Amino acid sequence: MPDDLAPGQLLARGVCRHLLTHDFVSVVELVPTPGLRVDVMALGPKGEIWIVECKSSRADFTSDRKWQGYLEWCDRFFWAVDDAFPVELLPDDSGLIIADSYDAEILRMAPEAKLAGARRKVMMQKFARHAALRLQALRDPRLPPGIQDA
Amino acid sequence: MPDDLAPGQLLARGVCRHLLTHDFVSVVELVPTPGLRVDVMALGPKGEIWIVECKSSRADFTSDRKWQGYLEWCDRFFWAVDDAFPVELLPDDSGLIIADSYDAEILRMAPEAKLAGARRKVMMQKFARHAALRLQALRDPRLPPGIQDA
Repeated sequence: MPDDLAPGQLLARGVCRHLLTHDFVSVVELVPTPGLRVDVMALGPKGEIWIVECKSSRADFTSDRKWQGYLEWCDRFFWAVDDAFPVELLPDDSGLIIADSYDAEILRMAPEAKLAGARRKVMMQKFARHAALRLQALRDPRLPPGIQDA
Repeated sequence: MPDDLAPGQLLARGVCRHLLTHDFVSVVELVPTPGLRVDVMALGPKGEIWIVECKSSRADFTSDRKWQGYLEWCDRFFWAVDDAFPVELLPDDSGLIIADSYDAEILRMAPEAKLAGARRKVMMQKFARHAALRLQALRDPRLPPGIQDA
């Protein structure tokens, strides 16, 4: 992963590393439904689905008018910010992760609002296809034209 | 993907490329249950799960005493072989794919034996975690020690 990533992507890297120590695997920039793109979607050992939105600055947070739309696509929702972020801005009924580009720490566990079975099934499949497609694109750059963008 | 792959892995590459043209994403070397490792597991747009075993030679096929154990982990089961392989050796109630390292073609569709819901759910989750973990390992080589082998 190159180090010319945007600040939010650097936080995402630290978040993904940390989540793995909790046995959660992650993908970045998954689209649960047209018009929404989540920074990090993580899948736990029991099929738990978490979303983490990474905010690199106050402006990055205040300009996000879509975040409540993420809640219905996960069992738990977290913010990830760096240690200079004014955390009092964040709604305190969400989870809170303090991150840098190397690691992260869960400061406040998000409340659980379990997905219904049918939606969990759809999200699991989206997660699986997202991860496998990007893995294939990295392993085999000579895929048929257009497939990489699917 | 380096070209110093084993013959079976080269076939798997062609198979994965071809399956993508049918909108099936693939992973390689997934372990559905301890002691079994499938060459290619593919996930279709409707959640279909296919297994493809890649055999590079007669000896490679005849030494495989485990293949019937794969049937219970997929909706359809295929063999993939190159165009020099004696296909009359293969059971004709399985699917047949002719492949090389660049592409492949489904010659005979496998019969469908649909997974039960609970097993499909487990396999979808295994597929998702397998793909995401390997994607993370490729994108971020500085993962916590030991995690790459999970």
